[in-house]
Amino acid sequence: MQIDSFFAARNSRMKASEIRELLKLLDQPDVISFAGGIPDPALFPAEKFRDAMADALSDQNQGLSLQYSTSEGYPPLREWLAQRMTQLGVPCGADNILITSGSQQALDYLGKLFLSPNDTALVGWPTYLGALGAFNAYEPRFDRLDPMGNRAAADVQADAAAAGGKVKFSYLSPDFANPTGITLSLQERQQVLAQAEALDCMVIEDAAYQSLRYEGEEIPPILSLELTEKGDLDQCRTIYCGSFSKTLSPGLRIGWVCAARPVIDQLVLLKQAGDLHTATLNQMAVAHVAADGFEDHTRLLCAHYKARRDRMLAALDQHMPKGVEWTRPEGGMFVWMTLPKGMDGADLLAAALRDEKVAFVPGGAFYPDDDGRNTLRLNFSSPNQAQIDEGIKRLGRVLRAAMS
Amino acid sequence: MQIDSFFAARNSRMKASEIRELLKLLDQPDVISFAGGIPDPALFPAEKFRDAMADALSDQNQGLSLQYSTSEGYPPLREWLAQRMTQLGVPCGADNILITSGSQQALDYLGKLFLSPNDTALVGWPTYLGALGAFNAYEPRFDRLDPMGNRAAADVQADAAAAGGKVKFSYLSPDFANPTGITLSLQERQQVLAQAEALDCMVIEDAAYQSLRYEGEEIPPILSLELTEKGDLDQCRTIYCGSFSKTLSPGLRIGWVCAARPVIDQLVLLKQAGDLHTATLNQMAVAHVAADGFEDHTRLLCAHYKARRDRMLAALDQHMPKGVEWTRPEGGMFVWMTLPKGMDGADLLAAALRDEKVAFVPGGAFYPDDDGRNTLRLNFSSPNQAQIDEGIKRLGRVLRAAMS
Repeated sequence: MQIDSFFAARNSRMKASEIRELLKLLDQPDVISFAGGIPDPALFPAEKFRDAMADALSDQNQGLSLQYSTSEGYPPLREWLAQRMTQLGVPCGADNILITSGSQQALDYLGKLFLSPNDTALVGWPTYLGALGAFNAYEPRFDRLDPMGNRAAADVQADAAAAGGKVKFSYLSPDFANPTGITLSLQERQQVLAQAEALDCMVIEDAAYQSLRYEGEEIPPILSLELTEKGDLDQCRTIYCGSFSKTLSPGLRIGWVCAARPVIDQLVLLKQAGDLHTATLNQMAVAHVAADGFEDHTRLLCAHYKARRDRMLAALDQHMPKGVEWTRPEGGMFVWMTLPKGMDGADLLAAALRDEKVAFVPGGAFYPDDDGRNTLRLNFSSPNQAQIDEGIKRLGRVLRAAMS
Repeated sequence: MQIDSFFAARNSRMKASEIRELLKLLDQPDVISFAGGIPDPALFPAEKFRDAMADALSDQNQGLSLQYSTSEGYPPLREWLAQRMTQLGVPCGADNILITSGSQQALDYLGKLFLSPNDTALVGWPTYLGALGAFNAYEPRFDRLDPMGNRAAADVQADAAAAGGKVKFSYLSPDFANPTGITLSLQERQQVLAQAEALDCMVIEDAAYQSLRYEGEEIPPILSLELTEKGDLDQCRTIYCGSFSKTLSPGLRIGWVCAARPVIDQLVLLKQAGDLHTATLNQMAVAHVAADGFEDHTRLLCAHYKARRDRMLAALDQHMPKGVEWTRPEGGMFVWMTLPKGMDGADLLAAALRDEKVAFVPGGAFYPDDDGRNTLRLNFSSPNQAQIDEGIKRLGRVLRAAMS
């Protein structure tokens, strides 16, 4: 019996993430790692979660927190999120909100909702690796999201039709994207919307990092721009995916979707069939901690991460050889580096681990094809400032050696 | 813009669960409900969870419990489950265990793993409604699981091929199944295995209720029987799905899969793409509470639920009119009732709610087709003994009125 002969065809596209396999190798304590994408655990609001959990598990509340609950999510958390979305420029009600087990689950369910095999998903080149992984299960074709480019909508659609499907959505992360750190301007967001109108497709707005802005003016979410134009959320094609993973805690797995009710209603059915509901206790605890100082905690995080970003940018200015370029993110967790053409991030990682005990993610992993081999991603949220200084110095030595 | 015109075809099969819609109507406090499938919240080990959560959120542990973790699951919980499976007759290691967000998620991911559109899943007629929901997303054909029947494997396969796919698995719950309460004998389990060998398909063994046995001898899991025969878990076609929802808490959403490593390895990739991992904190808390008295707590549950089952069976003997039949489950949460032919459970529910304020689930919901309209499911884990007496008395009156 060959068990994998029973697997459905979609599984051939589900491969181990390079990042994940890589992280297994990083347990050595003397490696300075810029490879993670994780928050600094020293900044978790653990004491607030202790209080929140004690409250949710009190005699009065345990019958609720430990019990089955509805697939839509815990009503007070949905209410809080509706208010939060309103502050962000998306006035809405709790029935526009679905709670998911992290925003990764939202991406999985949105793939399930929209993608038939050979449909086209427009994504950044590079884009979030986890989005490619989630969508891959539904066997789409990926094409370049390039709303500012010169390709006419009719041509994009013709390519999608030739591949046997339709353009179903654009997927993007407009603020401090993973992996590039780049933020879309107001005008660029409007072009994303205009292109989606021309293509008649949905827009998936991944706002995972939105709360982590360290400088510059907040730019309204794409969903806010569309709602302002159309005046009715139920007529909007943009689907906003939020997450508490970068602000309160990733380990609790709480994210949300804010969208038109026809989208939410069908996602609720997928959620019900998929895992019934997100853990009740976790939703209650997050609702408690969020209501008790989400803004304050986010300000604290931003102060810490801004200092690390500044330190990384300063260290890069000091230690990088000529010919290497990198982004200057206004927030988030990542700097994206472009090496001279012909260099290979994966080869460089091998050398960096061997010669200097410093790690990063080779950028090729973030492309749907073989592109981007001369790129890499640097995380600045996990290492402390001294590690950033030392690690970037080491990376400079590795690069100089490789380029000489 | 018609948003549902963008939905993938699979969504046409994802419909609102009748049970779920029904439960929305049951908020009236004067209705006695046998419709739920939920544990009695008074029996949750809340104090143990308070201790466990305080420990998991301690200064020492918060950096782990609130952080991202691996897709396979929390190692100490996987170790505990490997020991538990060994006690159940399935000696195995932690690498045969995947932690899922409830066993519902295991069913979703197993559908994703095995089912291409038009493949055949063999299921009970009736079967667990949530399994039909999970599998439906992958557009299978359902056929009757009838290992003791007279259909030759070649005929079952021929029907599957005619429908455009293969028989990928049998799905069943061998102990006190939802909805029937029926337990498969040792011989019947062996016939399930023999049929799977003849069909060359997998077996999904849903053991959600296995720990809730109130009388009779424990019968080994199907996976245990297969392992005894083959001697190597990695050669076994049976996939065991377990859950803490019926024992410790459903609200924490912790289940597991125990299977051959090729199955676990691929499920880990689906889990990674699907929601990264199950909440770290919840896994730590369940590992803590399970290690600290799983057996004792289960014994306590069994004593309570046995009394309710006994009370329900006694009340049924007393109040049901002639022509009505029901199962006598050795465990679990459900009694399954068969009404005289021509009666309709859905019509009866309308009358029961209107005339007597008593509720149950019409059995038709548990069939993949239009079969079983003259059946209904009664839950005895949620109502207390006085409610059981009074509710079954009311149901007797409703039935007598309907049959007269």
